[in-house]
Amino acid sequence: LFELIINFCSVCLYKTKTCESSKILIYPLDGSHWVNMKLLVEALHSKGHEITVIRQSSSFFIKEDPSLYSIIPVNDDIEDLKEFYDEYLEKHIQIQRGQSSTLTFLKMQMDFLLQDEQYDLVLTDPALTGGVLLAHYLNLPFVLNARWISSGEGHFAIAPSPLSYIPVPGTGLTDKMTFTQRVKNFLFYPIILFQEFFLVGPHYKAFCKKYFDKDCDIVSLLQEADIWLMRLDFVFDFPRPTMPNVVYMGGFQCKPSKPLPQDLETFVQSSGEHGFIIMSLGTAVDSLPADLVQEIAAVFSKLPQKVIWRHLGAKPSTLGNNTLLVDWMPQNDLLGHPKIKAFVAHGGTNGVQEAIYHGVPVLGIPLFFDHFDNLLRIQAKGAAKILELSQLNGQTFEQMILEILNDESYRMNMQRLSRLHRDQPMKPLDTAVFWIEYVMRHKGAPHLRTKSYRMPWYSYHSLDVILFLFSIAAVTVFMIVAFIRYVCCRACCKRKVKSQ
Amino acid sequence: LFELIINFCSVCLYKTKTCESSKILIYPLDGSHWVNMKLLVEALHSKGHEITVIRQSSSFFIKEDPSLYSIIPVNDDIEDLKEFYDEYLEKHIQIQRGQSSTLTFLKMQMDFLLQDEQYDLVLTDPALTGGVLLAHYLNLPFVLNARWISSGEGHFAIAPSPLSYIPVPGTGLTDKMTFTQRVKNFLFYPIILFQEFFLVGPHYKAFCKKYFDKDCDIVSLLQEADIWLMRLDFVFDFPRPTMPNVVYMGGFQCKPSKPLPQDLETFVQSSGEHGFIIMSLGTAVDSLPADLVQEIAAVFSKLPQKVIWRHLGAKPSTLGNNTLLVDWMPQNDLLGHPKIKAFVAHGGTNGVQEAIYHGVPVLGIPLFFDHFDNLLRIQAKGAAKILELSQLNGQTFEQMILEILNDESYRMNMQRLSRLHRDQPMKPLDTAVFWIEYVMRHKGAPHLRTKSYRMPWYSYHSLDVILFLFSIAAVTVFMIVAFIRYVCCRACCKRKVKSQ
Repeated sequence: LFELIINFCSVCLYKTKTCESSKILIYPLDGSHWVNMKLLVEALHSKGHEITVIRQSSSFFIKEDPSLYSIIPVNDDIEDLKEFYDEYLEKHIQIQRGQSSTLTFLKMQMDFLLQDEQYDLVLTDPALTGGVLLAHYLNLPFVLNARWISSGEGHFAIAPSPLSYIPVPGTGLTDKMTFTQRVKNFLFYPIILFQEFFLVGPHYKAFCKKYFDKDCDIVSLLQEADIWLMRLDFVFDFPRPTMPNVVYMGGFQCKPSKPLPQDLETFVQSSGEHGFIIMSLGTAVDSLPADLVQEIAAVFSKLPQKVIWRHLGAKPSTLGNNTLLVDWMPQNDLLGHPKIKAFVAHGGTNGVQEAIYHGVPVLGIPLFFDHFDNLLRIQAKGAAKILELSQLNGQTFEQMILEILNDESYRMNMQRLSRLHRDQPMKPLDTAVFWIEYVMRHKGAPHLRTKSYRMPWYSYHSLDVILFLFSIAAVTVFMIVAFIRYVCCRACCKRKVKSQ
Repeated sequence: LFELIINFCSVCLYKTKTCESSKILIYPLDGSHWVNMKLLVEALHSKGHEITVIRQSSSFFIKEDPSLYSIIPVNDDIEDLKEFYDEYLEKHIQIQRGQSSTLTFLKMQMDFLLQDEQYDLVLTDPALTGGVLLAHYLNLPFVLNARWISSGEGHFAIAPSPLSYIPVPGTGLTDKMTFTQRVKNFLFYPIILFQEFFLVGPHYKAFCKKYFDKDCDIVSLLQEADIWLMRLDFVFDFPRPTMPNVVYMGGFQCKPSKPLPQDLETFVQSSGEHGFIIMSLGTAVDSLPADLVQEIAAVFSKLPQKVIWRHLGAKPSTLGNNTLLVDWMPQNDLLGHPKIKAFVAHGGTNGVQEAIYHGVPVLGIPLFFDHFDNLLRIQAKGAAKILELSQLNGQTFEQMILEILNDESYRMNMQRLSRLHRDQPMKPLDTAVFWIEYVMRHKGAPHLRTKSYRMPWYSYHSLDVILFLFSIAAVTVFMIVAFIRYVCCRACCKRKVKSQ
C-alpha cells in the first residue's frame, strides 16, 4: 500500500522561463491534494515566479501545463491509482500514512540536476515527506502545504497538543471529552509514536545517515520547515495551541460560484420552492455498493427536492424523476446556488470547506482517511450529521436527510460558520502567497520557529530538571533524618549510660 | 504599592455621540500603557465607533478629549504618580503586579449606569484586571490590549509554556538555556503560581463570590477574553506556542518619522559624518543618580558624535559641547533620522519597538519592570547590548557605547529585524482594529478559544488518566504475580507431598 501512495509522484525535464523572479520547486502529493497545491501554483505563477513541479508521468491529476510550470517527471511503475482507490475502499483498511520507497525514488531525483538549478524555495505537501528530504538535500528554505504528515496530523509534530482536549485523529473524538474518552484518546496517542519511531522512523534514519551524514528523524526534519501553511482554520477545526510559523489558509480554495450551465440551471430551477440537494462522494470513489445505491435512490425519489448525484456506476432501478445522475458536477457553482438545500458529501477537506464557504448543511457519509474527523468538526458545531457506512441504509438515510432539510438549525449554524470563515483580514490564498514570498524574500524564517525540537525529549519536558530537584530534595530529607536519628541516638545512649 | 498602581484610573460622565456605530468601553492602564491604548482609541474613533474611557480624574497621561472619547472618571485618592515612580526607582523593588483595592473601586463603577449604556465591547489592559471583572459583570465580549497580567506575562495564562525553552519573566534567561539555567527557570515558575493563587487569587475569589455568585479565579476570567491583542511580535520576542485567539500587534505604535524642528535638525546636521546618539530613559524616571549622570556626560563629551539626551535633573558639570540636554524629544522622528547612530534606552516596550522599526542599535540601561527582558530579546539577536545599573560607570558606559558605534554588526542585525518587522501582510494597527471589530460583528469569538481552562489542572495534564492506567497496570501485574505464585506453590506442595 505504501508503495502505491508514495509513488503518486514521478520523472523528464522541460523548461519555461518567466522574467527575473524566484524559482520554486514544488513536490506535491497527487490526488485531491494536488487540487489545493495547483491553486498555490497558479497564484505564484501570476506573481511572476518560475515553477517546477515534480510529478509522476502517468498522474491523472497533475497534467502537463508548460504555460504554468515545468515538470520533473519520475518513473512510473505503479499500478493504476483508480484501481488502488477502489481496492482501498473495498478493503476499508485504515491507512497508515507513511513512506518506504520514497528513499530510492528520492535518490533518483537527487542524482538529477536539481542542485544546479538554484531554486529559492521548496513547496511541498508533507503527507509524503519526499519533498522535505529534497529540501534538506538541496539546503533550501521550505514551506509546507500541510495538514497530514506521515505520523498523523501536522500539529502534533510542531505544537504542544495536550491530550486532554486535543483529539488524536482517528479516535472520532471532539475537543470536549469525558473521562472515558480521554482514556481512549490517551491510548490512541502511542499509535502516532509507534508510526513515528518504528514504522516510518527507521527508514528516515537510514536515509539521513546515508545522504545527509547525520542523525535525524523525519519529525525533526519537518520541524525545520520555515512556514506551515495549514489547510484548515478555526471555524472548521477545534481551537488548539499553535506556533508562530503556522499560517492557517483553510478554505483558500473556495471562491464565489459562477452561473450554472443552462441545462443544470433549468433542472435546479424546476425544483421550485423546495430547492435541490447535491450528492458527491469525491473523486476517489466512483460509487457505493449497489444495494446502498438502490436504497439511496429510493429515498431521493420520495423527496420534493430535486437531486443532482455524482454516480458513475450502473443506474439504480429505484431512481426517481427528480434525480439527475452525473459523471461530474460543477460542485462549487452548485453549492453557491441560492436554491441549494443540502450537500450529501463524503467529508473530504475540500468539500467540507466549500460547504462552509457557501453555508450549505451537510449529510456526511465518511469513507476513509480524514473524512470522519472532518465531518465530526462541523457536526460538533451543529452544521452537519454523520451517517457511517456501516449504519447506512434506506431508513437511516431518509431519517437523516429529512432532519437536515427540515431542521433549520443546521442551515443557520452552517451560515454562521460561513460568515465567520469569510470574515478574515485577508483572503486565505493571498495570505498563503504572502508567506511563501516572505520566506523567499528573507531566505527562510528561522525567527518564527523554536529550536526546542533539538532538545532530547526528557529535557523538552523538563524531566531531567524534575529528577535533579527531586534528588536534591531526597538527599536533603535523608540527611536531615540521618542527623535527627544521630542526635536522638546520642541522647538515648547518654540516658542509657546515665541510667546504668 | 498595589493601591497606587490600581488607582491609575478613576470617575464623572460626559457624552459625545457619533453616528450609528458600536459603543466601546475602554478600561486602560495609566502611564506608558495609555500611549498604546490611545492609538487604538484613535483608530477605532476614526472608524466611527463611540468610545468611553474610564480614567482617574488626576491622570497625567489620560487627558480629557471630548472630540475623541467620553470619560467615566473614578475617585482620585492616590498620591502623585510621579512621586510614586521616583520612590519606586529609589527603592528598586521588584513589583508584584496585582490588585487589591480594585474591588471597592470596581464596585463603585458597577453601581454606576454602565450596564444601562449597552456597550458592545470592553477593551482593556489586563496588567490590572479591573476591566476584565467589569466585562464579566456587564456580560460583554472583551478584547485585551495585553502583554502583562497580574501574575506575569500574558502567554503563561493561555498558551502552553514549556519551561524548557520559555523563560519565565524576570529570570533574565533566553529561549536557549543550559541545564543550570533550566533549573533556575523551573524554580522561578512557582513565583507565578504563588502570585496567582495566594497573592492575587483570594481577592478575586472573594469578589467573584460576592458579585458573580460563582467560583472563579482571575486566570479563568482572563481566559474568557475573546481576543488577546499582544503588544509583541516574533521579530521582537522568542518564538513560543500560542493560541488561535492571540493576535500579535507588536510595533503597532510605530510610524514613519516626520521632519525635525529646525533647531534640532540644525544640531544633528552639525554632527557631519559621525552622526548622532539619543539617550532617553523613558517618562517614568526623570534622571539617574547624580554621580552616574556626571560619568555619562563625561563619556559623551569625548565622542565625535552629537548627543541629544532627555535629562530633567541638574546639568552635569562634565557636559560636553556636543551634548544637548532636553526635557522632551521627538523620539520617533529622531530614531527615523538618517544620521542616527545609536539609541541609549531603558528598554520600555515602546522604545524597543521603535528602535526595531527604525533599525537603530540600542545600548540598554534597564531600570525595572520588563526592561531587562525586553532588552535581552534584542541583545540575543545581536542588535543591542545591556548595561545594568549596578555595573554602570564611566568605564563600562564608554566601552559599550563605543562597541555599539564601531561594531557594524549591531546596526546590521537591527536593520534585519527592522526589515522583518515591517514585512507583514497588514499593518499591526489595522490588524488590531480588524479583530476588535470582528469581535463586535460576531458578538464574541468563542470558536477561537479552547474551553480547556475549565478542566481541573490534573485533568488538563491528563494526570487522572495516567493514574487510572497506572492503577490498572499495577492491578494486572499484581494479579499475574499472585497467580504465578499460586501455581508455583501448588506445584511445590504436590512435589513435597510426593517426596514425602
